[in-house]
Amino acid sequence: MVLRILRDFKKMQEIAHALRREAKTIGFVPTMGALHRGHLSLVRRARRENDYVIVSIFINPVQFGPKEDFKKYPRNFKTDTLLCKKEGVDIIFYPSAGAMYPAGYKTYVEVEDLGDVLCGEFRSRHFRGVATVVNKLFNIVQPTKAYFGQKDAQQAIIIRKMVRDLNIPVQIRVLPTVREADGLAMSSRNSYLSPAERKQARVLSQALALARDLIKKGNRDSLLVIRKMHQLIKRKKDARIQYICVVDPKTLAAVQKIKRQVLIALAVYIGKTRLIDNALVNSKYA
Amino acid sequence: MVLRILRDFKKMQEIAHALRREAKTIGFVPTMGALHRGHLSLVRRARRENDYVIVSIFINPVQFGPKEDFKKYPRNFKTDTLLCKKEGVDIIFYPSAGAMYPAGYKTYVEVEDLGDVLCGEFRSRHFRGVATVVNKLFNIVQPTKAYFGQKDAQQAIIIRKMVRDLNIPVQIRVLPTVREADGLAMSSRNSYLSPAERKQARVLSQALALARDLIKKGNRDSLLVIRKMHQLIKRKKDARIQYICVVDPKTLAAVQKIKRQVLIALAVYIGKTRLIDNALVNSKYA
Repeated sequence: MVLRILRDFKKMQEIAHALRREAKTIGFVPTMGALHRGHLSLVRRARRENDYVIVSIFINPVQFGPKEDFKKYPRNFKTDTLLCKKEGVDIIFYPSAGAMYPAGYKTYVEVEDLGDVLCGEFRSRHFRGVATVVNKLFNIVQPTKAYFGQKDAQQAIIIRKMVRDLNIPVQIRVLPTVREADGLAMSSRNSYLSPAERKQARVLSQALALARDLIKKGNRDSLLVIRKMHQLIKRKKDARIQYICVVDPKTLAAVQKIKRQVLIALAVYIGKTRLIDNALVNSKYA
Repeated sequence: MVLRILRDFKKMQEIAHALRREAKTIGFVPTMGALHRGHLSLVRRARRENDYVIVSIFINPVQFGPKEDFKKYPRNFKTDTLLCKKEGVDIIFYPSAGAMYPAGYKTYVEVEDLGDVLCGEFRSRHFRGVATVVNKLFNIVQPTKAYFGQKDAQQAIIIRKMVRDLNIPVQIRVLPTVREADGLAMSSRNSYLSPAERKQARVLSQALALARDLIKKGNRDSLLVIRKMHQLIKRKKDARIQYICVVDPKTLAAVQKIKRQVLIALAVYIGKTRLIDNALVNSKYA
């Protein structure tokens, strides 16, 4: 099968419709391009579980704030294409921003509450933009299964909730974060880091490991865990903590006393680069 | 073919999915029940244009304001079933409110601007509720074509916009308002009217006829047209005007000088019953 690149959403929709009519299953991996091993782990799983694999590459303008990195977000379409080819992707859907959001565009999907905390507190309307574009992409690509990374934990939670609430006929798969050898979570934004920053960036996963360890040793007090993580991260000279939270993995409500599984999530600037990471920690088996 | 009544959305979704896989077309008429000849005109068109016809009956709680008529809205499921049977409907989808909006429901679809004017000015969040439930129903019923009445002009405009913006793979058909012999637009809410009120309710369509006549005679000033409509309606003792607007049929922006096709829309209380009506008037051929 030859890799096809489609820009037109109507053509994409027609093909998806025809595939579904032939009872083919479609595995879908929505991305913003600049593919790394994290994305590829999703593509491989999609390849194993479906007849067709569609990857979308679209840097979604409505999920970026006015002061965020929309313009400088890495764009590597040629490399992305080669990687998709190698992984046996059938179609890259690569729409233009003008086709996705024509003049006079007005419709947004909002998942209340879940988008206002953690990253949402600092990235107003970010998750509205994410829910909206994923909803649009689902309508265009008509996937049987769609694949997301646990790295963007809040995004995955919001998309699961949207799918359930709006009765969207798709199965959501969330796969583990893929990491560099030293623990840094794969992210297209890692390319922004200078070599010195890159070294310091390890501290996010180190802080999560520390939290896991503290909970394993019996600590049940979130504030204590968060304080220890703070102390560790602040030792890095270019690190600036945006948030560290211990929350319920479904409702994202803050957890004071750790009794069951919690999501520990953090956002840290290393220099000018904002990085996120998270871990699901089960107090029983931590 | 026997009429089936389905309450479970998963079952409905499975059947719709199977039908689409067999390349059957599905015509969908979403309703709140209390079916009248307006609804039936939609059902008949759906019957002519599709392999399968699905009618949903669901009084959508999230499109009613706290002081509105959710509780007293007419419920005639038995009569509705008989009517659907007679018209050759294949499936009535009749979900519970608890299944459509389970505890912790959080996701809403909003079409900006278009839902804030006309009815939306007085029914805050009404159109958010409409867009959300129609989006959910489309995901469940997976229609090829969906049918709406011109009577609810703003609703039809918002749904068309949602479908286009979110790339929903459905064709929207909007059919003309069906009227009683004296011109009153068919509405389930007409059953609220006392005999004396019923007579006065003719004034809505009479005011629209007057507007059409004024424009036909060369009047191009919206304010003059609106003033004349006001004067006519105010002669009825139980009539209280909520709004009369002359707007662009796509953007719903107010029109001062009538140059091309306009939508003239009004909402009038007759006693305690809120009625709406509208007319598309083409200044060239009015």
